[in-house]
Amino acid sequence: MRSFVAALILVGLIVGPWLSDTRAASDREKLLTEPGVYGTFALFALNEEWAKQDPAMRIVRLTSLKGVVEQHREHVAIDVYLLRGLSDHADLLFRIHAAELRQTQEFLLDLKSSQFGRHLKTVGVMHGLTKTPNYVPGFSEQMKADLKAVSEPGQHPYAIIIPIRKSAEWWGLDQEKRAAMMQEHTAVTLPYLKTVKRKLYHSSGLDDLDFITYFETSKLEDFHRLVLSLENVQEFRYTRRFGNPTILGTMKSLDEIVELLAQ
Amino acid sequence: MRSFVAALILVGLIVGPWLSDTRAASDREKLLTEPGVYGTFALFALNEEWAKQDPAMRIVRLTSLKGVVEQHREHVAIDVYLLRGLSDHADLLFRIHAAELRQTQEFLLDLKSSQFGRHLKTVGVMHGLTKTPNYVPGFSEQMKADLKAVSEPGQHPYAIIIPIRKSAEWWGLDQEKRAAMMQEHTAVTLPYLKTVKRKLYHSSGLDDLDFITYFETSKLEDFHRLVLSLENVQEFRYTRRFGNPTILGTMKSLDEIVELLAQ
Amino acid sequence: MRSFVAALILVGLIVGPWLSDTRAASDREKLLTEPGVYGTFALFALNEEWAKQDPAMRIVRLTSLKGVVEQHREHVAIDVYLLRGLSDHADLLFRIHAAELRQTQEFLLDLKSSQFGRHLKTVGVMHGLTKTPNYVPGFSEQMKADLKAVSEPGQHPYAIIIPIRKSAEWWGLDQEKRAAMMQEHTAVTLPYLKTVKRKLYHSSGLDDLDFITYFETSKLEDFHRLVLSLENVQEFRYTRRFGNPTILGTMKSLDEIVELLAQ
Amino acid sequence: MRSFVAALILVGLIVGPWLSDTRAASDREKLLTEPGVYGTFALFALNEEWAKQDPAMRIVRLTSLKGVVEQHREHVAIDVYLLRGLSDHADLLFRIHAAELRQTQEFLLDLKSSQFGRHLKTVGVMHGLTKTPNYVPGFSEQMKADLKAVSEPGQHPYAIIIPIRKSAEWWGLDQEKRAAMMQEHTAVTLPYLKTVKRKLYHSSGLDDLDFITYFETSKLEDFHRLVLSLENVQEFRYTRRFGNPTILGTMKSLDEIVELLAQ
Amino acid sequence: MRSFVAALILVGLIVGPWLSDTRAASDREKLLTEPGVYGTFALFALNEEWAKQDPAMRIVRLTSLKGVVEQHREHVAIDVYLLRGLSDHADLLFRIHAAELRQTQEFLLDLKSSQFGRHLKTVGVMHGLTKTPNYVPGFSEQMKADLKAVSEPGQHPYAIIIPIRKSAEWWGLDQEKRAAMMQEHTAVTLPYLKTVKRKLYHSSGLDDLDFITYFETSKLEDFHRLVLSLENVQEFRYTRRFGNPTILGTMKSLDEIVELLAQ
Repeated sequence: MRSFVAALILVGLIVGPWLSDTRAASDREKLLTEPGVYGTFALFALNEEWAKQDPAMRIVRLTSLKGVVEQHREHVAIDVYLLRGLSDHADLLFRIHAAELRQTQEFLLDLKSSQFGRHLKTVGVMHGLTKTPNYVPGFSEQMKADLKAVSEPGQHPYAIIIPIRKSAEWWGLDQEKRAAMMQEHTAVTLPYLKTVKRKLYHSSGLDDLDFITYFETSKLEDFHRLVLSLENVQEFRYTRRFGNPTILGTMKSLDEIVELLAQ
Repeated sequence: MRSFVAALILVGLIVGPWLSDTRAASDREKLLTEPGVYGTFALFALNEEWAKQDPAMRIVRLTSLKGVVEQHREHVAIDVYLLRGLSDHADLLFRIHAAELRQTQEFLLDLKSSQFGRHLKTVGVMHGLTKTPNYVPGFSEQMKADLKAVSEPGQHPYAIIIPIRKSAEWWGLDQEKRAAMMQEHTAVTLPYLKTVKRKLYHSSGLDDLDFITYFETSKLEDFHRLVLSLENVQEFRYTRRFGNPTILGTMKSLDEIVELLAQ
Repeated sequence: MRSFVAALILVGLIVGPWLSDTRAASDREKLLTEPGVYGTFALFALNEEWAKQDPAMRIVRLTSLKGVVEQHREHVAIDVYLLRGLSDHADLLFRIHAAELRQTQEFLLDLKSSQFGRHLKTVGVMHGLTKTPNYVPGFSEQMKADLKAVSEPGQHPYAIIIPIRKSAEWWGLDQEKRAAMMQEHTAVTLPYLKTVKRKLYHSSGLDDLDFITYFETSKLEDFHRLVLSLENVQEFRYTRRFGNPTILGTMKSLDEIVELLAQ
Repeated sequence: MRSFVAALILVGLIVGPWLSDTRAASDREKLLTEPGVYGTFALFALNEEWAKQDPAMRIVRLTSLKGVVEQHREHVAIDVYLLRGLSDHADLLFRIHAAELRQTQEFLLDLKSSQFGRHLKTVGVMHGLTKTPNYVPGFSEQMKADLKAVSEPGQHPYAIIIPIRKSAEWWGLDQEKRAAMMQEHTAVTLPYLKTVKRKLYHSSGLDDLDFITYFETSKLEDFHRLVLSLENVQEFRYTRRFGNPTILGTMKSLDEIVELLAQ
Repeated sequence: MRSFVAALILVGLIVGPWLSDTRAASDREKLLTEPGVYGTFALFALNEEWAKQDPAMRIVRLTSLKGVVEQHREHVAIDVYLLRGLSDHADLLFRIHAAELRQTQEFLLDLKSSQFGRHLKTVGVMHGLTKTPNYVPGFSEQMKADLKAVSEPGQHPYAIIIPIRKSAEWWGLDQEKRAAMMQEHTAVTLPYLKTVKRKLYHSSGLDDLDFITYFETSKLEDFHRLVLSLENVQEFRYTRRFGNPTILGTMKSLDEIVELLAQ
């Protein structure tokens, strides 16, 4: 059955190569690494009718998904995650990076209008902005050096997203006190730099959040230990929302998503 | 496809020019600038059946939307925003200004009864009242002068609505203390007067809120920095609800909305 | 269209005059003014099928609504409010006064079983009891005299319902302290006695509330100012729920409701 | 119509007399009075399809309800309450007493699988355990004597269920302090012993509650005064959940329920 | 009827013996006892269409459930619990133990894609990790000896799952203080070691929880007393979520589940 589905996908979808365009690839690289980029996390559940579609019809619909992604990948960087089985209420997560949120909205509008999108219920949308680090300039030289360690190459199958809201007390502290606490916060994360990749988005005003913290790892136990360490530092007492929801999924290529949902 | 839809819209909808009537335009100006006006923010989601309508039927339905807006624009000022893709659970926001909430109710009743309205699920309704500024009379002359700066003309594509509820402690403070904190609050907003347009609605008793704060900007990053600044001042500690939800969308003309939803 | 609908209503519904019976009117007067009466606020939303009924069928169904109200009006006093367009999630509010909650239940059972009631989803039910004033006996003579002022006759088109729950600290205060705070609370309401009509229901044990406060006014801005005044007094700090939801609607005769919903 | 329905019920349902079996009656008596018995409160709403059934079909389905109750009444004591019109979101409440929760589960499984049960949506389930009184042994002799007063015989048409969760501070107090507060709590309830019947269920661990308090009365105003008295005592400050929901309904025999729902 | 269903099940399902494979059994044993294993609690409700299927169709669908479990049992240990009648909103609970959460996701994806799974709505998913005990090494020798007591063999029909989140204050305490409180916590649980089996999962970062506590017992009253004891110790004051939801069900073999749901 899987191979039959895979064959249908081959015929139906592989029209243009995925991310072959060098320019798109370099734009994607920029969007994923530079400050001043908007990151959107859009969570969707498949509606009840999806389960009732026969495989051929599903593949037609999934082709439209692939088409929409192709059409927008020059302007926005799109990553897809499978949440089904690991998170409540949502099946898919799209992480979209764009220079302007308007571009993200255009992608999501086209996604929702597509034949596949009509089976998607929007479960949540969160936005954040990448920025140059706030506190790092004041850290010790040793810590700055440590922070340059790069996470190990290879597969990071799990992704975890934890939304954060700080208390009013936190924002009321002076910059120096916050910097000291962030240095303590950062220190306990150093042992996990190699196995847990992190990315921070600033959300104040764009959503009911102050930060979206994004993690990738192939070692979930390390990630768990990292969170335990973060719960131990003083800065954690100024956090009034941590999770709610915590989103856990696995990273997938669009082709893998198509194959999985076709079944 | 888009041009076909646009042609259908041209034939079907452009019967009378939009806002051509000078009197309606001047009434609209008054409603948008004077105190003692009621502002209503009505959030709607399109129901599941909308996605199943064919384009021709959608255009018939969207014509009814345009008709209802035409019919009421002498009495109420209506602005439309596209939330889909940027906010959870709602697709459209109508901001309605009226001298009396009865008039707003009449518009929304006709909207719901229209052929288009039958596809709308009401997600939220918030009301506020415009008033002359409470604290400005006591501000320094310099600040009063600064506040006269007008936001830059041109497009402000993004709109953000943040509902606010103050704590009982806030209301228990004497007027002088609150005025001092509001002066600090206002001071940090001055750098953003030119790029972020603001409007305040007073809601106590009309809704589970004390204020609705409304923002327009083409520079979302400036808006984000403005919110960060507001989180830093002492008055923020007396806020017990900030957002929940934060509503983010893009401003659209009715014609743009019609064209987008027709697809 | 409206006149056609009105004609159908005339033929179909005006069988017996509304509230013509003198006895029913006097019973109604008693229920609305005396202590020891149960007041129920029942909120309903029209289901999705209602919007799909044709006008003739709607009128048949609305006739059943009118019939149920006629049948029960000897025992219970029924007022109807239109919430659609002004409140979230509910379209209609019935306020029912009865000597016994059993009678209210019988009315609501018959309403739900009626052809119209099958289109109603129950969104909320709140109960309270009218009582002789707790704190007034201890007020100053001047205040007692002021409180005798009657609200101005004429139309009060808006109705607002705000549920209240006091904190455990409030109930733990001795009677004298609470009386002093209630005197301050009452003092700030005096300027609004003429334009905002008020009624208080005691709910402890009957619902997750301590009080239901009910307001009628034609001047919503006065009502807003009244609430602002109430937020300023010391007693407000002992309120742990104020609204959630705040219910805002317009008072309608049953005939008006029938005409509006028939469209 | 009612008499037609009643006749159909007579033919269809009155096969065996309700609770005629002496053994079942005595078992029921034990379950309702002894400690170490599990009490379950199961709340159900009728689904939208129920309203669309014709009367004859409803009676067929209601016969299955009666059959399931008959089948289980040897092992579990079942009481039925009508919530519709008095409580939000639920129409029916079953109170089930059993020596083992397994037996309650078996009854509820059969109920859900029955033709009637297919129209029931489970709105809530709460469990508690009857125990010998914790604090009474330490009360004064006078209070012990007072507590022996029995509630007046006759109809108690109203039932109210209030779930309770105490704060961590309460459980952290030593037994002596809690006993003193419970004596004060009990003292204020004495004036209502005759008109308000009470029963206590212990829930810690079985549900997100510490207690389920159950009341029966024909005088709701007395019950309201009792709750006001309980809000005044010191022990109330250690309550962090009181209600949420408060459940109010009327006690009905199964035959009454069948007749009411058949319409 | 039951025997007819049982016969159909015999014909349809008993193709391969359940857990006959010795290797699978030993893997299961490891997964259930060793540290470093991921435990997932997945809660499902049967959708409205399930109740409308005829018995033969149900059995076809249940066969697919059994097939999916068979297919995955080499990699994951699967236990099934019946919640219907004892918990709100969910009918079934799957507890899945796996060396990697990816394997759990694969099982749940196949379950959802199966003919049976199309009737399942995901109500909740919680994850935790088994670890070697944190605090036991510092306990007294006597307590270590006591903890070696094994729970009595035989049937433990009830299972209870209570999710726990500790306060930021808890994590801010030094290890020594936490260890002292955990010793007090453990001491009060000793009387229940024989009748209440416990298992602990660590969740920080994997979910909006710090711990999932899992209990099995045939004596629910003992479990209730155990929880009361835990509410009394100092450590309980540092718990900010205990339950919400508390999940109560009965342990069933897959064959029992199939037989029960077939009816």
